[in-house]
Amino acid sequence: MIETIARQTGAAFQLKKGDRLRVIDPQGEQVSDMVLFNADDKREKLSSGKTLDFEETILITQGHHLWSNRSHKMMAILEDTNGRNDFLLAPCSPETFQIMYKNPEYHPSCFENLHTNLAQFGIAPDDIPTAFNLFMNVQFAPDGKLSVEPPLSKAGDYVLLEAKMNLIVCLTACSAEQSNNYSFKPIQYEIIPANS
Amino acid sequence: MIETIARQTGAAFQLKKGDRLRVIDPQGEQVSDMVLFNADDKREKLSSGKTLDFEETILITQGHHLWSNRSHKMMAILEDTNGRNDFLLAPCSPETFQIMYKNPEYHPSCFENLHTNLAQFGIAPDDIPTAFNLFMNVQFAPDGKLSVEPPLSKAGDYVLLEAKMNLIVCLTACSAEQSNNYSFKPIQYEIIPANS
Repeated sequence: MIETIARQTGAAFQLKKGDRLRVIDPQGEQVSDMVLFNADDKREKLSSGKTLDFEETILITQGHHLWSNRSHKMMAILEDTNGRNDFLLAPCSPETFQIMYKNPEYHPSCFENLHTNLAQFGIAPDDIPTAFNLFMNVQFAPDGKLSVEPPLSKAGDYVLLEAKMNLIVCLTACSAEQSNNYSFKPIQYEIIPANS
Repeated sequence: MIETIARQTGAAFQLKKGDRLRVIDPQGEQVSDMVLFNADDKREKLSSGKTLDFEETILITQGHHLWSNRSHKMMAILEDTNGRNDFLLAPCSPETFQIMYKNPEYHPSCFENLHTNLAQFGIAPDDIPTAFNLFMNVQFAPDGKLSVEPPLSKAGDYVLLEAKMNLIVCLTACSAEQSNNYSFKPIQYEIIPANS
């Protein structure tokens, strides 16, 4: 069954080892931030530093794994029809909009949508790591300069992942204007049980 | 007073807001991994994702700040005589040598040197974030591929930082062969108090 995450919201759920997760960009140009925790010991979680180290690349896509802070494989990326994701930048947070975008008003954010959805699992805001940002198009120049460009994803693009341990997963439909070409859209996901 | 961190070891200490820290590569071609915690609330710590996001570059050097998971400035980089540091790759750990270098034997690592030195402050291995790797020369290709190259630092190169909050700091003299051009050397540091 395909679930829908409404624009500028999030969802958290569990996967068993061997379950597959399809994250879909139904309309195109929409980012989804994802964080992972070991469901059996929540102190083990997704690590950008460990993933970039073991995979030896900035650009994580089909054929790579997402690794934990304890050097374990958390997920395998089986398919990636778009092929561009980001694992450099932190989830957008209230401070992102205040500091980078000079917006002092309330603004929905991935960080808020991650920690409010993860509270049911006893995970606090300070526990949230740098997310794996599906469909996010962060370009890097030879001098290191980073720029957030419109996603390259088209309607229906998806990333298919397989859980390599029991997981708590949280996904968002990202809330940052620049990351989503200034239009907020839903994200969809489908859980495919291991024994199906 | 200049303190010396012996080859393949580490040291942890506190800084008051306004104190400056000079990290020196006394012989050249030696990496030092650094992690930071808010001394008044250790749940606040260094964040690579937040730093790359706010500074909008992969290459963090003089003129940049190191940011926390709570979007606060932890340190300002006042001077950087070498100018090449890494903030992508996790500290080398026992698993780095087992998985990447196929070495099943015991091997000293930055991760071990970080958590053993931080234990006195009540900081556990799982609390250690991706480190800011001073003098580390990680090159990235346009296709994202990462390679660990010999440091560009010469004997006496240093990075001068200023604490923007009360900090617990841990530094290592890195233990990974490839990161240090296959020769392990000491790292030195000097604390310059705020009112000196």
